Amino acid sequence: MMPKQKGILVIISGPSGSGKGTIVKELIQKERYALSISVTTRKPRFTEEEGIHYFFRTHEQFQEMIEQGEMLEYADFCGNYYGTPKSYVEEQLQNGKDVILEIEVQGALQVKSLYAESIFVFVIPPTLDELRSRLTHRGTEDECIIEKRIKRALEEIKLIAQYDYVVTNDVILKAVSDIHSIVRAEHLKPKRNEIWKEYTKGDDH
Amino acid sequence: MMPKQKGILVIISGPSGSGKGTIVKELIQKERYALSISVTTRKPRFTEEEGIHYFFRTHEQFQEMIEQGEMLEYADFCGNYYGTPKSYVEEQLQNGKDVILEIEVQGALQVKSLYAESIFVFVIPPTLDELRSRLTHRGTEDECIIEKRIKRALEEIKLIAQYDYVVTNDVILKAVSDIHSIVRAEHLKPKRNEIWKEYTKGDDH
Repeated sequence: MMPKQKGILVIISGPSGSGKGTIVKELIQKERYALSISVTTRKPRFTEEEGIHYFFRTHEQFQEMIEQGEMLEYADFCGNYYGTPKSYVEEQLQNGKDVILEIEVQGALQVKSLYAESIFVFVIPPTLDELRSRLTHRGTEDECIIEKRIKRALEEIKLIAQYDYVVTNDVILKAVSDIHSIVRAEHLKPKRNEIWKEYTKGDDH
Repeated sequence: MMPKQKGILVIISGPSGSGKGTIVKELIQKERYALSISVTTRKPRFTEEEGIHYFFRTHEQFQEMIEQGEMLEYADFCGNYYGTPKSYVEEQLQNGKDVILEIEVQGALQVKSLYAESIFVFVIPPTLDELRSRLTHRGTEDECIIEKRIKRALEEIKLIAQYDYVVTNDVILKAVSDIHSIVRAEHLKPKRNEIWKEYTKGDDH
């Protein structure tokens, strides 16, 4: 029996309107994936459960985790901290699960420096017009916010060359299937697929 | 309309008994692939056609092609030359076809220095016992030749770390599907999937 292959940390980023959230929901339908669970200092909402939606911690505890180097990445948003705990991700990877982490470009670049072995996927809509259209049809935002989001999307897209893969989200199931192919291919790299080392073990005697 | 993406040169190697030939036959059933056609100086056999099975050339013509740098790689086998012509491969790649080139490890390493953009796939049977069993059950070779092939396989397997991907050929259709995933994933790398550059074109004005 070959030992179980360690999982891969799959970072998914993309501008608002890229549909990355929907893609992630589809991906984790497959048993081989685990979704990274964030730590936050904000109060749980009525339906939210500890260890399922978030790990809820106090500001002090969060600060302590940062100092102890227990965070893969973190950010401050509207007075609350949000972060990705190393221990949970590491545990899932050891269990052979591919861990999906949906984070912003800035957070992703933080992770890259810590986990060189992780893979970085950038999701974009097929065209800029389509992005504009998706943001507009949400209907919840005014023109100024939409323009800001588009400007930010263009800034983020400039960083694509730092990602390993670019997935166009035109048809959602096609995009999901693209990501499955990426993860499958990555598991076949010689550094991960070490079946060949078994062959040369007998070489010593 | 996005311009058609250029094809990828896919190099497939593996020891005798790995089943790479069968895998290649399955792969090229898909229209997106083209099989590289070799140039040879040996005489055509009765059923062989120019430009389908081989490009048949004289020794002089072959020597000329080498001198003109028209060969991706070549080797001398039993007094005849066999080689991969750059022009045919290049033409297929420009037409958006992924070109499959099944060659030995030594030839593969020659190609690597010329076509850094190509991808290198190594096919191995699941275990050394299985390799031995496949070579034995061919029934055409004596024990001495089988042992030589196994020794050579072990030498080749040591070079796996220089390949991009290792595919285990346990179930043939699984191995074929692995290679489809690899090629699909490679097309999604930012250097090849340049859809994102369309987004920033408008940035000038």
